[in-house]
Amino acid sequence: MGALVGAVATLSVVDLLIRDEQQEEEKKSSIVPQEQELLHEAIRYGVPSMQNVKIRQGYALGYDRRLRNAAWVAEYITKESLEKNGDVNRLKSSFKVDPTTPTAFRVTPAEYQNSGYDRGHLAPARDMNSSQPAINESFLMTNISPQVSKFNRGYWSRLEGFVRHLANYYGAAYVITGPLFLPQKTKEGDGYTVSYPIIGTPLNGIAVPTHFFKVILIEKKGKKGQKLKYLATGFVLPNQGIADKIPLSSFVMPLDMIERYSGLVFFDKLERPSLLPLCDDTKCELKAIEFQKQVKAIE
Amino acid sequence: MGALVGAVATLSVVDLLIRDEQQEEEKKSSIVPQEQELLHEAIRYGVPSMQNVKIRQGYALGYDRRLRNAAWVAEYITKESLEKNGDVNRLKSSFKVDPTTPTAFRVTPAEYQNSGYDRGHLAPARDMNSSQPAINESFLMTNISPQVSKFNRGYWSRLEGFVRHLANYYGAAYVITGPLFLPQKTKEGDGYTVSYPIIGTPLNGIAVPTHFFKVILIEKKGKKGQKLKYLATGFVLPNQGIADKIPLSSFVMPLDMIERYSGLVFFDKLERPSLLPLCDDTKCELKAIEFQKQVKAIE
Repeated sequence: MGALVGAVATLSVVDLLIRDEQQEEEKKSSIVPQEQELLHEAIRYGVPSMQNVKIRQGYALGYDRRLRNAAWVAEYITKESLEKNGDVNRLKSSFKVDPTTPTAFRVTPAEYQNSGYDRGHLAPARDMNSSQPAINESFLMTNISPQVSKFNRGYWSRLEGFVRHLANYYGAAYVITGPLFLPQKTKEGDGYTVSYPIIGTPLNGIAVPTHFFKVILIEKKGKKGQKLKYLATGFVLPNQGIADKIPLSSFVMPLDMIERYSGLVFFDKLERPSLLPLCDDTKCELKAIEFQKQVKAIE
Repeated sequence: MGALVGAVATLSVVDLLIRDEQQEEEKKSSIVPQEQELLHEAIRYGVPSMQNVKIRQGYALGYDRRLRNAAWVAEYITKESLEKNGDVNRLKSSFKVDPTTPTAFRVTPAEYQNSGYDRGHLAPARDMNSSQPAINESFLMTNISPQVSKFNRGYWSRLEGFVRHLANYYGAAYVITGPLFLPQKTKEGDGYTVSYPIIGTPLNGIAVPTHFFKVILIEKKGKKGQKLKYLATGFVLPNQGIADKIPLSSFVMPLDMIERYSGLVFFDKLERPSLLPLCDDTKCELKAIEFQKQVKAIE
């Protein structure tokens, strides 16, 4: 247990917890909080929500104790951070309880057994190829959500590869990933209902997301003397097997909508209108073969 | 708008946001945060969760932006605070948007129209009989959840009266109220599903809770020289019409269970084993006639 605790970053998050809704409203008043020390590059442009924030080597995360899922996981991936360190091996990692969560709200790896769902990484293990402690931390259960196997190992995995492709292409990418629980029209068609299964029994239920989102922000350096451009896009995918031929563009969703569905706020240190459509600057396409090449290039 | 903003407490919650999961784990280590100024008596024994905390005259509240419901509302009700101030009149109050919530996550009173649900107070208006600003604040939409009309005006209202009875009887009561979204066995019986309707359309959905909880803590003064005793109980009621004859005792639920269902932590500044069962010290009974008398006595 001691070794496990040691592997978890124990940075205080006190400095992080300086924002609340009232302060957002008062951003331009004199009560603006002082500039705080940045605890993780992944949250440079804002913390999506303030509940149960955990700072790890390879990601920052907010945990939803009620759903026993992360609310969001933020990463900053760079060309360099993706370079495989020869010693790093994900086979040396294993799923572990997150000891920083109180017992009542913890998830154990065993709870997924016979559930029919994969233990799906939110910050992908493969993004942490440069550091064994980082890849180990990606296996903490707070970074894991129930995913349909065909989804986790199929289309979702290809999307994760696309994100790494972007980080290589542009040099770096900010990525926020999380679960969604979206309403559906009732059978009677007279309204909407949110419905999702849980793994386990009611007292220990792990909510199974209906969808997952990924939000990506790129800082694009212009030519000499030109200003930095911010490119952004969001994707929302159903937690189910998705045919390879369905274009990624069909899953694009505006950040404002993902914010409403998730209750989160993305990149609030940037003006929303300054974010240009990423999929206009690069093709948001998953090509199975190119993806395979890409993975090889990274590994 | 200016007047409305003026009516809302604008105390900074920075001081509140000093706890996180890691700190809970480290409670007894040297990193224990300094004693903070208590921003509201209702949260003397702990803040149930740290997201979007709002401090009002008559209550403290944590808001869940995703569900567009409060996660919890905490009150401290005393014999004195329940005394009706002659000028106070709930008819002078009206449901209002909470201006401290960002636009994307706000609820307007109009969204409930034709929804089939009551705008149900979590901190009851009647608890604020001593102050017009306090009763006005109880009508802010962050303190409102969708309730089935027969529930809101029936059994739930009687439970609220019982809580006031307790505050009068013991001198004061700490009360935490909130929504729950509980799993049910699937029709096939092979697992559990969480299912709840929303008011409105997906992008503006207000989640309709399946249940509501109330958690009550009483400080009971012993005879001279005796220590303070803490009495506590929790109730979980379905959001539906409940027959008057069903005993309140059938809705008692241990605090530990309500914590797991809600993702909240209650009274964490007290040792859980030191909380004695309130319903052993007083009869947890709703008697319709006595309740009516009680209400008269308060008004």
